Amino acid sequence: MKITEMRVTPIAIGDPPLLNAAGLHAPYALRTIVELHTDDGLVGLGEIPGASATLALLRQLAEVVVDHDPWQLNAIKAAIVAKIGDGGTSTLKTVRPWETPRINHVWSAIEVACYDLMGQSVDRPVVDLLGGVVRERVPYSAYLFFKYEGAGGPLGFGTDPAARGWAAARQAEALTPEGIVAQARAMMAEYGFESVKLKAGILDPELETESMLALRRALGPGVPLRIDPNGAWTHETALRCGRRLLGVLEYYEDPVRGQAGMAALRRELDLPFATNMCTTSYADIPGAVAQGSEDIILTDHHFWGGLRATLELNRVAATFGRGLSMHSNSHAGISMAAMTHLAAATPMLTYACDTHYPWQSDELLVGGKIAIEGGCVTISREPGLGIQLDRAALARLHRQYLDCGLSDRDDAIEMQKKEPGWQFMPVRY
Amino acid sequence: MKITEMRVTPIAIGDPPLLNAAGLHAPYALRTIVELHTDDGLVGLGEIPGASATLALLRQLAEVVVDHDPWQLNAIKAAIVAKIGDGGTSTLKTVRPWETPRINHVWSAIEVACYDLMGQSVDRPVVDLLGGVVRERVPYSAYLFFKYEGAGGPLGFGTDPAARGWAAARQAEALTPEGIVAQARAMMAEYGFESVKLKAGILDPELETESMLALRRALGPGVPLRIDPNGAWTHETALRCGRRLLGVLEYYEDPVRGQAGMAALRRELDLPFATNMCTTSYADIPGAVAQGSEDIILTDHHFWGGLRATLELNRVAATFGRGLSMHSNSHAGISMAAMTHLAAATPMLTYACDTHYPWQSDELLVGGKIAIEGGCVTISREPGLGIQLDRAALARLHRQYLDCGLSDRDDAIEMQKKEPGWQFMPVRY
Repeated sequence: MKITEMRVTPIAIGDPPLLNAAGLHAPYALRTIVELHTDDGLVGLGEIPGASATLALLRQLAEVVVDHDPWQLNAIKAAIVAKIGDGGTSTLKTVRPWETPRINHVWSAIEVACYDLMGQSVDRPVVDLLGGVVRERVPYSAYLFFKYEGAGGPLGFGTDPAARGWAAARQAEALTPEGIVAQARAMMAEYGFESVKLKAGILDPELETESMLALRRALGPGVPLRIDPNGAWTHETALRCGRRLLGVLEYYEDPVRGQAGMAALRRELDLPFATNMCTTSYADIPGAVAQGSEDIILTDHHFWGGLRATLELNRVAATFGRGLSMHSNSHAGISMAAMTHLAAATPMLTYACDTHYPWQSDELLVGGKIAIEGGCVTISREPGLGIQLDRAALARLHRQYLDCGLSDRDDAIEMQKKEPGWQFMPVRY
Repeated sequence: MKITEMRVTPIAIGDPPLLNAAGLHAPYALRTIVELHTDDGLVGLGEIPGASATLALLRQLAEVVVDHDPWQLNAIKAAIVAKIGDGGTSTLKTVRPWETPRINHVWSAIEVACYDLMGQSVDRPVVDLLGGVVRERVPYSAYLFFKYEGAGGPLGFGTDPAARGWAAARQAEALTPEGIVAQARAMMAEYGFESVKLKAGILDPELETESMLALRRALGPGVPLRIDPNGAWTHETALRCGRRLLGVLEYYEDPVRGQAGMAALRRELDLPFATNMCTTSYADIPGAVAQGSEDIILTDHHFWGGLRATLELNRVAATFGRGLSMHSNSHAGISMAAMTHLAAATPMLTYACDTHYPWQSDELLVGGKIAIEGGCVTISREPGLGIQLDRAALARLHRQYLDCGLSDRDDAIEMQKKEPGWQFMPVRY
């Protein structure tokens, strides 16, 4: 089996106006889709965050990947690194909380597509190539956002007045504890989620903390709750809010910036600390170990560099006493399938995974969106990722990408349309 | 594909009277062979160090393994752990340098056999299931031993006077620097090894150090040299000998015992330190990181718990600035094949691997011993491990096991036959 062609297609999928420490989601989230075609007619799929620099790198790699056997991951990775090195510097820790060395994105897309091919070629689901099934049903959490009114996508930030249930809640403004509780109830009713995460770090920390307490009152003691201020809080704010949330939180995700900051706060609060900001790559592990910055690491194969690299975190977590959860960006179904295969094969991943998937209505898979039932995605036993590309949908979402005029995510620009003069601040409160 | 039967066969393979810190090798080295048979007629092979407790554990597991799909490694491992836990306490660090929690041995045998089955079932070599080929030719080192005269095996510790070349050198006494140089020349001429390791910690440290200096003079500056006293030296002895070997050694393997001891010595000597004694499992990694006990970790899938577990050391090594080499015990061809597939897929494994393979003349593979040419084993492109069991040879080596009367390795007993009253001492010099 040889790779004969790599197709790289940027797409835009509808995304509601979700608030976060970096600003406001645009009406479209950008993703890049990688297809690896082989000489025996198979197509392997990968999906990563959309960005102009990543797209340019992938386009440089078409010739590098061709003629390789998809099973030769080490050789393909080495050829890619020889061509592009680390793909450019990350700004993750200094400015925005979603960047990483681009080699990790690029390799993630290609490696996932290779696994899809491997699985298809031997009639095995990807999970079997990762050590096999630890859990057949992968639990996800209800990922709540403060938001403005609007649903994003083809309607821009408009709303459909006929929408009901979660479709209506997805459009609704949520800027208060009551709004967040309503959002939680609608999302949980639709998908059956049994854990809840609130994206914070954007509104008044007291209001955000009140929202968590309101969720606890509304949902009862049996629902694990997480808050993620994306490092936007000072030590004092995070200590004050954290004390109000003692006994309430399943974990406290990135209340403050940096390993030293997390470690200092962690010494003062008897709460599990989680991160996808201060410990985001293997280069950060020694510092995390030395300082004790977190209890739980949020993995993400798009950021840690593919399925194998992320699975290796299982060993690191077991060795250094960390738990594992999973981070998410706005994404479509290829990522959802890959995340689910990975989570199904990762023994230490005992926390429900994050996913933005309920927020996005666009899909590019045959059969539409992957089902979440009882808060879980059931692992597919179909070969490879167990999904098929809907080429008409891909073409439409690529057209949407071209039409929307976006080529890089920048939540500050969108936020400034709502609040002129708004500026990103690493630590806001 | 389902496992229908697990056959467990203890064997004894001829082994010369090799000296080491634990005493003297018996005329036979014990190994345990695991065969996994499947409903589609495939047979997967695994090999581990022979020991009565390990054998008893494996025999308990026959029913646990049956009916599993060999691709479901996580599920099989979980079922085994549910049955036997860690399989019993290791005495690695307190007494003898070759024990480990038995679950690691047991799982290694079964996991390697599963990989052999997976590869056969999809017509892929095991290396492809581990991320693919990093190096097609896996370099091994010439593993030298001080020894008494004799070849072990069917001749006991006798010799064949007609033997020539390496066959003669394998029989010859080697208790002096000159004897070690002759052994090196004969082994290197036969196999083309380009790196040399001397097992030490048994004779006078000055003589052992002189032997390294003699090897350097005889072999020239281009041949990497290693010495392994198995932790039998005091700090003072190791410091004195190490100073004489500055600029001579590729690495200094376990000159002293324990991570603290290694770290203290390492601070005083500008030499790369290697270990397979103070950092031998993931439980030891935090201590190794905190103390800085070594530069290079010697992996061994029989001890670290299988191919995947050992491959994960690649990530740990890259993360914490360790190099990787590979440890060996006396072994037959199934282990040689597994070691080679693993080494071929491990990017950080840039040091030539240890192997005792030239010392053992018995084999249980169709076609006899795996070829070492130019110091390397070329990775097989045949499905699975690329080997086949010679059932007549297996029966003969099992008969040899029954006849030899050994059921556990104990180098002290054999040593006492040569030196009455000899006792194992963790630190001798």
